[in-house]
Amino acid sequence: MTDDAFLLRPVGRVASPLTDPADAPRQGDEGAPEAYLDFTPEVATALRDLRVGAEVLVLTWLDRARRDVLAVHPRGDASRPETGVFSTRSPHRPNPIGLHRVRVLAVDGLRVRVADLEALDGTPVLDVKPVLGPPDER
Amino acid sequence: MTDDAFLLRPVGRVASPLTDPADAPRQGDEGAPEAYLDFTPEVATALRDLRVGAEVLVLTWLDRARRDVLAVHPRGDASRPETGVFSTRSPHRPNPIGLHRVRVLAVDGLRVRVADLEALDGTPVLDVKPVLGPPDER
Repeated sequence: MTDDAFLLRPVGRVASPLTDPADAPRQGDEGAPEAYLDFTPEVATALRDLRVGAEVLVLTWLDRARRDVLAVHPRGDASRPETGVFSTRSPHRPNPIGLHRVRVLAVDGLRVRVADLEALDGTPVLDVKPVLGPPDER
Repeated sequence: MTDDAFLLRPVGRVASPLTDPADAPRQGDEGAPEAYLDFTPEVATALRDLRVGAEVLVLTWLDRARRDVLAVHPRGDASRPETGVFSTRSPHRPNPIGLHRVRVLAVDGLRVRVADLEALDGTPVLDVKPVLGPPDER
């Protein structure tokens, strides 16, 4: 790594019935339950324009991931060849930032209900960005 | 913010002719030049399966952004109403993580040449993830 390091400060937490990594679907449209994003009061201004129905990207800190894993068997399938993590969506990676596309279902003050979030209960939230429309992920 | 904080360690840097924030296009398909990702030797295993032609998401640390800005005029246009940053792609936000969709043009050891990267020269690279295909950004 380089000498520099940067400090992330969570802006909220995920509240979800998903508590066991073994139960979590690998991507949000594979059956994730509805979940909540509970934001801290300090970022109320940042989230004030989130609207019901919006498709947004939620960035999280995958706090139960390993940072020393550089290659994995995709989807945990040992029959598949080990692959460098930058070519996988494994949570295990040097900077375990999760990227989740979700739909806003309700906004109630600092609590935002979302569909299709595969993150575990308690996962720190780092950022929310709007989806830009195709081509997305810009 | 919460009491927790997490330490990001860059896995590389952007090398780009873009050096002035005023010159940077706002999104990658608005005329960004070709650029390089120069990775650190420690993550060689993580990037070994990146292939020419791959569409990937590059996560960066927008080190020239402000973290205390919670609302902005979209695209810097003062005639547009101030909007909470979680509903914009402004670089200024509590955790200034950049998300860039790019195409891999060449791989030469730890140096990866990419198209359509709007990040400034020297920007720290945090992560690379594959695009999953529509619906993307999962």
